[in-house]
Amino acid sequence: MKIKIIQVDKTKTREFQSLIDYYSKLISPFVDLSVINIKKSDVNEREKIKNEEGEKLLKQINENDFVIVLDENGKNLNSIKFSEFLRNKIEGGFGEIIFVIGGAFGLSENVKKRANFLLSCSEMTFTHEMIRVILLEQIYRGLMIMKGRKYHY
Amino acid sequence: MKIKIIQVDKTKTREFQSLIDYYSKLISPFVDLSVINIKKSDVNEREKIKNEEGEKLLKQINENDFVIVLDENGKNLNSIKFSEFLRNKIEGGFGEIIFVIGGAFGLSENVKKRANFLLSCSEMTFTHEMIRVILLEQIYRGLMIMKGRKYHY
Repeated sequence: MKIKIIQVDKTKTREFQSLIDYYSKLISPFVDLSVINIKKSDVNEREKIKNEEGEKLLKQINENDFVIVLDENGKNLNSIKFSEFLRNKIEGGFGEIIFVIGGAFGLSENVKKRANFLLSCSEMTFTHEMIRVILLEQIYRGLMIMKGRKYHY
Repeated sequence: MKIKIIQVDKTKTREFQSLIDYYSKLISPFVDLSVINIKKSDVNEREKIKNEEGEKLLKQINENDFVIVLDENGKNLNSIKFSEFLRNKIEGGFGEIIFVIGGAFGLSENVKKRANFLLSCSEMTFTHEMIRVILLEQIYRGLMIMKGRKYHY
């Protein structure tokens, strides 16, 4: 069971990194989780940044992977539905399950076009560091729901 | 400008506490922020726990305070709307603006009845520690939007 998170730029805020490590450790006994950081583009135009980062992101994705892109206009799922969705994809015979989190300027159209699913975690806008933590927590929660384990605080 | 967060139980996960401190520090130049931890009830029945914690919570609230209760069935606001909402309440001549976050078993009906507004941050369920961080980040984001400051990563 392989889950890969591809994200643009490193997590710079130490406090967020600690929480990311915390959840990664909780998740690791259950799935083979890998996190890939794409180098942030240093060109100085918004569209170019998104395209350059997008190209690098797409190189990490194989044809048979199931790609979930975090997008504010994506679909909202509650945690139960997200757990069912995740189980369904895990059992779906795909390559890897890939979550993509964009950088400060968002994602290129090409990345969104490759997505098999656009997921929104909230109507609210969060920093991309926060989204990383939220996603990991929901993956962990989803796994616990799948396994019927207690975890509700 | 006074904002008070009343929550049940201490934040036990060190990594969450670090992030809470991080955002509290960012917010503190702009508002007088206080966080009150209500002691978790140690009775062993769900309804009794909620009622006992609820009574303690209500003691912290004055008649002219504006009370926003975090509730999964509350209203979802995007960050722009949340900022407008917050500005409106700050300028509304209320006592304090109070956010209430329940414990592991949720909040009593009496607390929900006292609420002036029920707010939901997501369709997803988060730990109550995560909700604390999300709320603080959205308060900070809301303040930055109000002040026309740049903050979008």
